[in-house]
Amino acid sequence: MIRTHEAGTLRKEHAGQKVTLAGWVARRRDHGGVVFIDLRDASGSAQVVFREEDHAHDLRAEYCVKVTGEVRQRPAGNENPDLPTGEIEVVASEVEVLSESAPLPFPIEGSSGVSEEARLKYRYLDIRRQRIADALRIRSQATYLANEVMRERGFVYVETPNLTRSTPEGARDFLVPVRLQPGNWYALPQSPQLFKQLLMVSGLERYYQLARCFRDEDLRADRQPEFTQIDIEMSFVDQDDVIELGEALIGRIWKETLGYELPTPLPRMTYAEAMARYGSDKPDLRFGVELTDLTDYFSGTSFRVFQAPYVGAVVMPGGASQTRRELDAWQEWAKSRGARGLAYVLVQEDGTLGGPVAKNLSETELAGLAEATGAKPGDAVFFAAGARAASRDLLGAARLEIGRRCDLIDESQWSFLWIVDAPMFEEDGEGGWTPVHHPFTSPKPEWADTFQDNPGEALAYAYDMVCNGMEIGGGSIRIHRAEMQQRVFDVLGISKEEAESKFGWLLEAFKYGPPPHGGIAYGWDRVCMLLAGGESIRDVIAFPKTASGFDPLSGAPTPISPEQRKEAGVDATPKGDRPEPAAQQS
Amino acid sequence: MIRTHEAGTLRKEHAGQKVTLAGWVARRRDHGGVVFIDLRDASGSAQVVFREEDHAHDLRAEYCVKVTGEVRQRPAGNENPDLPTGEIEVVASEVEVLSESAPLPFPIEGSSGVSEEARLKYRYLDIRRQRIADALRIRSQATYLANEVMRERGFVYVETPNLTRSTPEGARDFLVPVRLQPGNWYALPQSPQLFKQLLMVSGLERYYQLARCFRDEDLRADRQPEFTQIDIEMSFVDQDDVIELGEALIGRIWKETLGYELPTPLPRMTYAEAMARYGSDKPDLRFGVELTDLTDYFSGTSFRVFQAPYVGAVVMPGGASQTRRELDAWQEWAKSRGARGLAYVLVQEDGTLGGPVAKNLSETELAGLAEATGAKPGDAVFFAAGARAASRDLLGAARLEIGRRCDLIDESQWSFLWIVDAPMFEEDGEGGWTPVHHPFTSPKPEWADTFQDNPGEALAYAYDMVCNGMEIGGGSIRIHRAEMQQRVFDVLGISKEEAESKFGWLLEAFKYGPPPHGGIAYGWDRVCMLLAGGESIRDVIAFPKTASGFDPLSGAPTPISPEQRKEAGVDATPKGDRPEPAAQQS
Repeated sequence: MIRTHEAGTLRKEHAGQKVTLAGWVARRRDHGGVVFIDLRDASGSAQVVFREEDHAHDLRAEYCVKVTGEVRQRPAGNENPDLPTGEIEVVASEVEVLSESAPLPFPIEGSSGVSEEARLKYRYLDIRRQRIADALRIRSQATYLANEVMRERGFVYVETPNLTRSTPEGARDFLVPVRLQPGNWYALPQSPQLFKQLLMVSGLERYYQLARCFRDEDLRADRQPEFTQIDIEMSFVDQDDVIELGEALIGRIWKETLGYELPTPLPRMTYAEAMARYGSDKPDLRFGVELTDLTDYFSGTSFRVFQAPYVGAVVMPGGASQTRRELDAWQEWAKSRGARGLAYVLVQEDGTLGGPVAKNLSETELAGLAEATGAKPGDAVFFAAGARAASRDLLGAARLEIGRRCDLIDESQWSFLWIVDAPMFEEDGEGGWTPVHHPFTSPKPEWADTFQDNPGEALAYAYDMVCNGMEIGGGSIRIHRAEMQQRVFDVLGISKEEAESKFGWLLEAFKYGPPPHGGIAYGWDRVCMLLAGGESIRDVIAFPKTASGFDPLSGAPTPISPEQRKEAGVDATPKGDRPEPAAQQS
Repeated sequence: MIRTHEAGTLRKEHAGQKVTLAGWVARRRDHGGVVFIDLRDASGSAQVVFREEDHAHDLRAEYCVKVTGEVRQRPAGNENPDLPTGEIEVVASEVEVLSESAPLPFPIEGSSGVSEEARLKYRYLDIRRQRIADALRIRSQATYLANEVMRERGFVYVETPNLTRSTPEGARDFLVPVRLQPGNWYALPQSPQLFKQLLMVSGLERYYQLARCFRDEDLRADRQPEFTQIDIEMSFVDQDDVIELGEALIGRIWKETLGYELPTPLPRMTYAEAMARYGSDKPDLRFGVELTDLTDYFSGTSFRVFQAPYVGAVVMPGGASQTRRELDAWQEWAKSRGARGLAYVLVQEDGTLGGPVAKNLSETELAGLAEATGAKPGDAVFFAAGARAASRDLLGAARLEIGRRCDLIDESQWSFLWIVDAPMFEEDGEGGWTPVHHPFTSPKPEWADTFQDNPGEALAYAYDMVCNGMEIGGGSIRIHRAEMQQRVFDVLGISKEEAESKFGWLLEAFKYGPPPHGGIAYGWDRVCMLLAGGESIRDVIAFPKTASGFDPLSGAPTPISPEQRKEAGVDATPKGDRPEPAAQQS
């Protein structure tokens, strides 16, 4: 090492020692004849004192320097109690500029208001900021802890391929032309799902991986074309085993990084209850404000809008005092979500009901409404009426918006829970069914024999871990019996040919004594974002891309040259004489 | 868990206990009225005894079953001392078939001679074999240990992007079309080299990653289009620091997986010495047989073939007794390597020299040859004459072949060493120079100011770790000064434009106070292959591809449909109005 000490580790016990430090010039203060420089390295920073003749005037912000000097206690009154090294300073006797810095596109310290594009373009400078460096460090720490938990529990870390088979239906697969087999393409995996199930057929019993996943889809806010998950699969387990493991994993991480003790076993809420009470399958329980089902209440209403398969409401505390403009803003908000608007009633301080909906309701309906919804004088009641799922979804979103606008969310709190008993299937809007999770998800034991008779009611052996209103992990017990798998395909209307084309090699493997198995995957970017207190997963990704998949740092993606195109075999016609895979032969 | 015990953990202390096991039917033996089955799970296997009426006759090989029964000590004389569970058996009272198995394409146990193609096609069955499962487990264990070492030393685990920028020169990049930016492409990284150097500019100081790398090149034997390296980079270090870390990492792994104590510090050999003595920059030191330089010895020879810039020899112990056919085979071997043949002299038991070359040599040359080469009566001496590098390369390969044919290699031994002081540059055959490592490799300090004056002699600050004749890790101290980097580009004949296009975003970053830094990367597949005692890296990869990049399991790569092609924007013309990256602006 070209230094003897790390700057941030110096204490008054070091006084009198000659030390060599290396790091970056952070802050600089000139005090008539003496120059003070904060020298920053990965461990922290220390104050270095230069006499003027030491050529400290050559040192500019973010120069990388090596300094030799003697540690001394700071003169009385000059200590900085906010800094771990605040009791000492280093009196420089030698300084060497290791490398210079051009003027910075933005200052490293103490600034805000730098655009994200600039930050990503100069990400290496952005990472010099404490907040971003800390975020990457906590991610690293969480990864170490995850490895530790899995090691203690006998999991085998297996790396699965990133160059895999594309399926015609995998419309969001990234594709990769193969130079050695012109005209043929690999696909990047959206997850290692098929491979981890194959590893269970292999008899490894306990698999995990920090797995990179790829998805070429319209990037919603805070998605990345590549992301990481902690991917786990176990054999001979039941739902409780996977849930226990998930709690141990997340519990260890939260405890050792944040000192937070996970209240295990975590509460479990059924999907049905979560949808009914919170209008969401990932409810944020850091605040109350629950949905009220008013379908029965309005069953005899003469108000046309409420003559619907579902009528529900959510109460905004103090919402009656909103201005007309604020109430209009709610309408815009609802429209931006695809709803026609957000009906409301205002409960005045004297208990009377106002707002445009009130005059459409009968006296009886008005009289009982506050009690039915739990609204108090001064509150607003928002309604949704129509199809059950869409209405609840709107009310659930309104609930979150109420939480934010009314500042109901205690940001210092953690709310973890499991959502269980999700439906196996949902309607596809064309008279058929699609899987809520994926087609390998097992029904709950009580639905094992009958799910096909009542697909809309059948419950899956699936579980999602929710933290502060975000789904951070999800998984299921898988189907391992060919006969049951066939019944699922039948419900989904997947033909033998389609099943073969999509999952052929997994189905082939399942002919050879597959064990009962299940697993879970944690969205590692999200987990780390929560740990770091970030607002975006980009905060915990060293080199993230923008929402359109653009990398402001490298300029990727780019056009390719005709030579590259030819070399990669992009336009070649594939030869037809290749061996057939196992899946295609059966 | 659907079982109470793991089969391989049962001991005679469990006798009398009722247990439930789950696993696979391995071996089956019928003994008049009683059926014995070895039940295998990930922990090992246990013998299960069925009375005939228990329907054990339904159990076929590799059925997945759940068995409940009582553990009992085996009757005296029936113990199996070779098996950890050999003192007990489980008397089955209940059995449930969890899933059946179709007839196997090859038996799981005790067989050899199964083709690799069949093994890879049914990899999930192949992994049920002890040898392959053990190889994956030792890889997992090594990964855990690597994480532990890096954690103890304060390294930050950072995940770098897999969707990065292609460069027109990166002819072996895999390319990836981007649906959201039609006509634009990402490239998969050949290594995280640029990103890890950026992380040093970021001030993280200690980075590592288990990194997936991709290379679309002609696959030589035992290469894969995707592979893994343990990628490490450190700031403010010297060569000794990186070497010490590398020894600590490999030392911990070898000790804890194999019980082998690495003799640290490992020996270091210069590149020049390795080439002179062993004809290789990755010498296998598990046996002797060194090259002899005879250039001076034959400086006055009248034998045309030996009138060459370099003449060298290597001795094959006992080689004089080879048959004519064996000696001819050496000629074929040399030709297959691109040489014209392999000249030889046979030292007869009486000390006289035979073979076709002998009659071309003078009496003096013949008289001193045995002594000059160290050959003893009964040995053969092989010669190479011509350009120094090519001749040494041939002799180095002959040395390895001699080692194999004469069984000189002690397979139980480990030979670790560092090769240091490699040249910075080598001739590119067109009058110019190419870098031996990469253009960011620093010269050794004594060459810092002068390497450009004598590129052929200048030494790099680079180091490779060699184990048993294989390079398992390699790295260097990097250049961090713009002025020095420019001199390297000048030697390489890289124009400003070319440098900009290839490395622009790294060079841009280097304007902002880059620290001195260096690193190393270990070829993880090779490391794990050595640990597992495998013969191919495919042994330690869960789902490997064949040499042509074909995956017999999934059938990847495949043609894509016209819809996929359109969707991915493969044939779209890129729009020209995208923001320019940092690197392109300067």
